[in-house]
Amino acid sequence: MTKAKPNLEGDLQDQAHHEYSSELGVTTVQVARLPGFRTQSGGDLPFIDIAYQTLGRLSPQRDNVVLVCHALSGDAHLAGINPSTGRPGWWDFHVGPGKAIDTDQFYVICSNVLGGCGGSTGPSSINPATGAPYATDFPPVTLREMVRAQAMLLDHLEIPRLLAVTGGSMGGMQALIWATDHPDRVDTCIPIACCLAHNAMQIAFNEVGRQAIMTDVNWREGRYYGRPLPRHGLAVARMVGHVTYLSDYAMHEKFGRRLQRPALPEDLFPDFFSVESYLQYQGESFVKRFDPNSYLYLTKALDRFDLLNQRPAREVFGPVQARFLVISFDSDWLYAPEQSRELVRLLKRANLPTTYLNLTTPYGHDSFLIRNQEFSRAINHFLTGEYRKLHGVGVRPAAERHP
Amino acid sequence: MTKAKPNLEGDLQDQAHHEYSSELGVTTVQVARLPGFRTQSGGDLPFIDIAYQTLGRLSPQRDNVVLVCHALSGDAHLAGINPSTGRPGWWDFHVGPGKAIDTDQFYVICSNVLGGCGGSTGPSSINPATGAPYATDFPPVTLREMVRAQAMLLDHLEIPRLLAVTGGSMGGMQALIWATDHPDRVDTCIPIACCLAHNAMQIAFNEVGRQAIMTDVNWREGRYYGRPLPRHGLAVARMVGHVTYLSDYAMHEKFGRRLQRPALPEDLFPDFFSVESYLQYQGESFVKRFDPNSYLYLTKALDRFDLLNQRPAREVFGPVQARFLVISFDSDWLYAPEQSRELVRLLKRANLPTTYLNLTTPYGHDSFLIRNQEFSRAINHFLTGEYRKLHGVGVRPAAERHP
Repeated sequence: MTKAKPNLEGDLQDQAHHEYSSELGVTTVQVARLPGFRTQSGGDLPFIDIAYQTLGRLSPQRDNVVLVCHALSGDAHLAGINPSTGRPGWWDFHVGPGKAIDTDQFYVICSNVLGGCGGSTGPSSINPATGAPYATDFPPVTLREMVRAQAMLLDHLEIPRLLAVTGGSMGGMQALIWATDHPDRVDTCIPIACCLAHNAMQIAFNEVGRQAIMTDVNWREGRYYGRPLPRHGLAVARMVGHVTYLSDYAMHEKFGRRLQRPALPEDLFPDFFSVESYLQYQGESFVKRFDPNSYLYLTKALDRFDLLNQRPAREVFGPVQARFLVISFDSDWLYAPEQSRELVRLLKRANLPTTYLNLTTPYGHDSFLIRNQEFSRAINHFLTGEYRKLHGVGVRPAAERHP
Repeated sequence: MTKAKPNLEGDLQDQAHHEYSSELGVTTVQVARLPGFRTQSGGDLPFIDIAYQTLGRLSPQRDNVVLVCHALSGDAHLAGINPSTGRPGWWDFHVGPGKAIDTDQFYVICSNVLGGCGGSTGPSSINPATGAPYATDFPPVTLREMVRAQAMLLDHLEIPRLLAVTGGSMGGMQALIWATDHPDRVDTCIPIACCLAHNAMQIAFNEVGRQAIMTDVNWREGRYYGRPLPRHGLAVARMVGHVTYLSDYAMHEKFGRRLQRPALPEDLFPDFFSVESYLQYQGESFVKRFDPNSYLYLTKALDRFDLLNQRPAREVFGPVQARFLVISFDSDWLYAPEQSRELVRLLKRANLPTTYLNLTTPYGHDSFLIRNQEFSRAINHFLTGEYRKLHGVGVRPAAERHP
């Protein structure tokens, strides 16, 4: 894959339209019901469901666990074919036998976040007190609370500690929270394309999406369940998100100024561009799989994320035991490399062993979802190397079976 | 003004809230009714109104005319205080006595585009055939047709040729069309923060705005006049536009992660950020002054803009007589400097005298709307120098009365 002629993959294409087979075959998601959860905002959830997937085998010493945290629109279906959609998990390129996170070596866990809509408790879940969906009675949740819910899941699974916690974007922020809030449970941390705190531009783009949803007449203060969804608002929110996830170069290469089809008599305007068609398709597809209220809750949790939150870096990073591999992408203008560099500077100042990789890719923020051998190798070599350092014995580096 | 501590002005603040007085005092806009207009798409307009403003005095030789073309949300009110709003025109920083475009020396004209909603004929104008607004019966118009309508206005005003045509963003694209479609009428051309053709990312952001408007239940296929406006859709469109006009640096400096106010009991979420409040305000203000259908028509005209449009550059630039000053801003990621450089390469290859300035500013695309001495001086020196070259005698370079 060269920069000159990128073959856009990952989130840039509808994988189901291609003959894509996962080495993992069909994989499933389970749900754990966990005891009551009280949020910082005073919300009381009598129980929470957390949907999760496990891949690979837990070692007898329980020392080979890799936790993967998903991004805004992700879910617990990390890799392998989802039987209900026929589509591969969102990180199938990077998780599987012989892949970056090698399921022959590691026990890999991914769970849907609290507040989400992929099987975990969120605004669309039934509130046992009323028998109706929580809707906007659901308490605001923070990324720290999503991590706390994941920690409860690991307790439930009797996983004492993590060889690694990783994720891109919102997943990377959760990985950072893991390393700082649960320092005694995290050996290594791989935050990808993320930041120490959402900045004004990141908040602004999210707010555009929220306003699109909340001003849709069907939103009805969030009480739209059993009625028409605020689908147009959610579609617009997804469209604006999509544009920010891509680089202008990637969009130029994929779409340029190509027209989707000749003008039709019913068209308001001539020249229906392919990129317009693509965005409309992405918006409409998203509506079928994502709850608008979850979109509000998760984007607001992202915007409220601030790892230091007025605390001195010394206090936040002092107890941390993890070693870090920080990855960013040079074409990512939404979570720009400068934000990762700022994180790296703080980690190094705290004397935490940190490797930083700013990869050259043409794909923008979506780069972490896309097939990329350099990215794969970096993660695989870090994980196998760290396992060897920790346990004296090696896990076998993944054969480069990754096509 | 230093890069370290920018004092954001121009479009970044509501100028009416500050004690801002224009050296031009109160200025007005006139409307010219021009004979029938046939569009490329086959639309027939029995007449068109073009709203325009003139500032300064036309020289007896009629050789000191500067035409300024406005951007997407601009209008004919270029400079001086608008009596109906109490606010200065959109380029008051740069047009006036002693300013970049010195009204003591030049006769300055600015007209609202065909298809707009600032006094020129557009979708919200009355269709004389029906007595009701055109709405979406208004024919799609192109930037070339907007320029053709301006040329008709100049004929009406008996202005044979232009010392200069300039504008930022959509205004810059019109300036380029002037130089290529009317080569015998243009002495110099100053395209600012623009491009040779809209690229996929620019189309994508516009399409998000259009979808927000067209999926608003109040849009009703554009026939909302006399009924509730699709105000929420237009507000979301304006919000996404605003984010793209600013740099992340400018937003960070102006807003950072500051909260607008303490949380209220009715807030769905804690932490209402200043940048959210700002965007909501911008969206709501825009609804009061802009027609949603015009927003659709103008953004689509922008997206369809392609100066070469499959023609060889030799054919397009061959007849051009103008000399060029091309300006871009290094922090502008929406109309990135690379697009201006591409234009400059073509102009130079066509042996057209071209000066290129890529200014260092922290403000993003909005830089051309903001007080900036370097920008002002560059334009003023170019205009006075070119006038001297053309006419043997000088106009006096503007004293730097610009504060």
